Amino acid sequence: MSDDRRARVALSRLVEPGHRGVWRAVQELGPIAVWHGLRDGSRLPGLSDELRAGAAVRAQGHEPARDLEALQRHGGRLLCPGDDEWPAARLDWPLEDGALAPPLALYVRGRPALAEVVERSVAVVGSRAATAYGVLMAGELALGLADRDCAVVSGGAYGIDTAAHRGALLSAGAPTIAVLACGLDVTYPKGNDDLFAKIADTGLLLTELPPGCAPTRSRFLVRNRLIAALTLGTVVVEAALRSGSLSTAGRARDLHRHVMAVPGPVTSDMSAGAHAELRRPGTICVTSAAEVLDTVGRLGSDAAPQPRAPASPRDGLDETVRRVLDAVPVRTPSGEASIAKTAGVSSLVVQQVLPPLLVAGLVERRAGGWRLTPLGAGRPAAGSDRAAS
Amino acid sequence: MSDDRRARVALSRLVEPGHRGVWRAVQELGPIAVWHGLRDGSRLPGLSDELRAGAAVRAQGHEPARDLEALQRHGGRLLCPGDDEWPAARLDWPLEDGALAPPLALYVRGRPALAEVVERSVAVVGSRAATAYGVLMAGELALGLADRDCAVVSGGAYGIDTAAHRGALLSAGAPTIAVLACGLDVTYPKGNDDLFAKIADTGLLLTELPPGCAPTRSRFLVRNRLIAALTLGTVVVEAALRSGSLSTAGRARDLHRHVMAVPGPVTSDMSAGAHAELRRPGTICVTSAAEVLDTVGRLGSDAAPQPRAPASPRDGLDETVRRVLDAVPVRTPSGEASIAKTAGVSSLVVQQVLPPLLVAGLVERRAGGWRLTPLGAGRPAAGSDRAAS
Repeated sequence: MSDDRRARVALSRLVEPGHRGVWRAVQELGPIAVWHGLRDGSRLPGLSDELRAGAAVRAQGHEPARDLEALQRHGGRLLCPGDDEWPAARLDWPLEDGALAPPLALYVRGRPALAEVVERSVAVVGSRAATAYGVLMAGELALGLADRDCAVVSGGAYGIDTAAHRGALLSAGAPTIAVLACGLDVTYPKGNDDLFAKIADTGLLLTELPPGCAPTRSRFLVRNRLIAALTLGTVVVEAALRSGSLSTAGRARDLHRHVMAVPGPVTSDMSAGAHAELRRPGTICVTSAAEVLDTVGRLGSDAAPQPRAPASPRDGLDETVRRVLDAVPVRTPSGEASIAKTAGVSSLVVQQVLPPLLVAGLVERRAGGWRLTPLGAGRPAAGSDRAAS
Repeated sequence: MSDDRRARVALSRLVEPGHRGVWRAVQELGPIAVWHGLRDGSRLPGLSDELRAGAAVRAQGHEPARDLEALQRHGGRLLCPGDDEWPAARLDWPLEDGALAPPLALYVRGRPALAEVVERSVAVVGSRAATAYGVLMAGELALGLADRDCAVVSGGAYGIDTAAHRGALLSAGAPTIAVLACGLDVTYPKGNDDLFAKIADTGLLLTELPPGCAPTRSRFLVRNRLIAALTLGTVVVEAALRSGSLSTAGRARDLHRHVMAVPGPVTSDMSAGAHAELRRPGTICVTSAAEVLDTVGRLGSDAAPQPRAPASPRDGLDETVRRVLDAVPVRTPSGEASIAKTAGVSSLVVQQVLPPLLVAGLVERRAGGWRLTPLGAGRPAAGSDRAAS
């Protein structure tokens, strides 16, 4: 571990992410000089006394080696500017008036290489208090994007974020990335423990904050700029007015990324924020993964190939999910224990796999258990529902 | 009646509205020369043999005086270019490639002066096969627009058109205009007989077609350009892909009017056309009458004043409607006969008045009859529903 990397770890402990003065000082003096300066209480150009006082308090008894040990213990790794895996094209944005600074370092857990994954990625964000409609739309969009090799980036929160990650996990296509507002070893929200484990299996967990850091309101907002910056565009699926997800859309706009929103019923307060976004010049109305890819591919980036024809939702499933799906009956609903037996997996696995399949519209819950929908059975949906029952 | 006017009546019988060649010939030679030429089978510059043959057949036994008599019998009047009531600024559009021509004359029934009414007007259009959501949105938008002195123009069809006219009729504000694809004396659709009578009471029925003409598919499409042209902008409330109402939006775009669309659930096929419109550059997402007026007022016309604060929906009702509304109980639902008795009107009137009040959210249907909603009772809606029951 070079001193330079160690200094970046230390700085991410001593100051909050996104600080413009610290980032500028690092660009000018290098991370080691800024770290030592803050640690030793020296004056540094552009950094206020208040910031220096706060950093000095945090520096007491802090040792970057311990953060790195904790990171390794949790299977994480450190990314710094200059690393192959560092997505320089996405994270090197100009510091315009009031903009938050790029990250000094990133803590990452998961197998894929970050720079490769985000090259073709879209953020899918929305409210925690999502409706069934929003959950369905987020799940469908994410599954469709992942099936078309587009990584889904979101914030790991309940509601739309969870539905987006889950939808993407149903696909064997592109991985999903959760950008956290806390340390990699901190599970927030607690109930998404399993989801984060699944994401780390095939995708990436990512944060600017060193191990142990708790999420705070300001950290969520600062984190949102990372979600916006890493991706070709941000899709707001369902958001009330003043939802935090609108700040992600705002940062995407600031960073000249595409801003998209999914329409919903005007009568639903949970779509009011999405509609407010749609009324802003430049925001694109999207109703499907193909339309999202059309937007980011057309006006967007060098990297986005032409959208492919939609694959069957069944095509991209991983092996366990496919086994469970194959064990769900077409006609007479079956209980979870019976499905588990047929599939040769535990009931716990069945309980984990069915809800995202429900979100994706492949299975349905009926009296007596679960059965396939026409879509799940691989039949055309229109008019075939009655034939299946 | 001048010969010039008589010629325009004759021409609207001999050729279909919107014909570019006929319109150009009238501009160059005057309506009398074109009429006599077509009647007598003469060659005219820019008019095909086919058109002349068709016109000659129609001219046999035709006498403009009879159309004018039929018009008068039905309480209608003729409008021609140059009349005070002729909305010249709206109907004098350039004949760009492929565009349909402006009307040669208009047949109008109703008291208001057309040119004044359309000065501040918006088209509210959508599918015949509307959902409850679309009917609600069209009714609310139209009521809100009329309350803010903006005339609602639509096509008199079932579904969204009917909801728009009904919503506007609930207001004592601006009148509503139905632009028909048939003669003023032809009731199409039949079931909207009462609606047309109500519109003619306070608003306007309008058509390019002389008395007796039946609606045809092409006449609907040609009529749509008039709806688009007469107004500051067109709002698509609910439309399936390939809905005729999208042609109105297309003509509005061609004529540099504002195009707006109301979002809806992506899961509803009846909103797919509105969403397709929203994906076109320049289409504005609108969710309320205030947003519609913001759009047409802001970028729009000379004539549009600043939107006023929303009035109470109860304020703008006509006297009969208000009497019926006052007779609807707040708590225990009451039958139509009982409401009629309290209001001092016939049961038929009550049956006509309640559905639009339902659309406007002022009354609700419960077991045992009708009662006021919190909105209808003039109380704030949030949380008060339980208190009212």
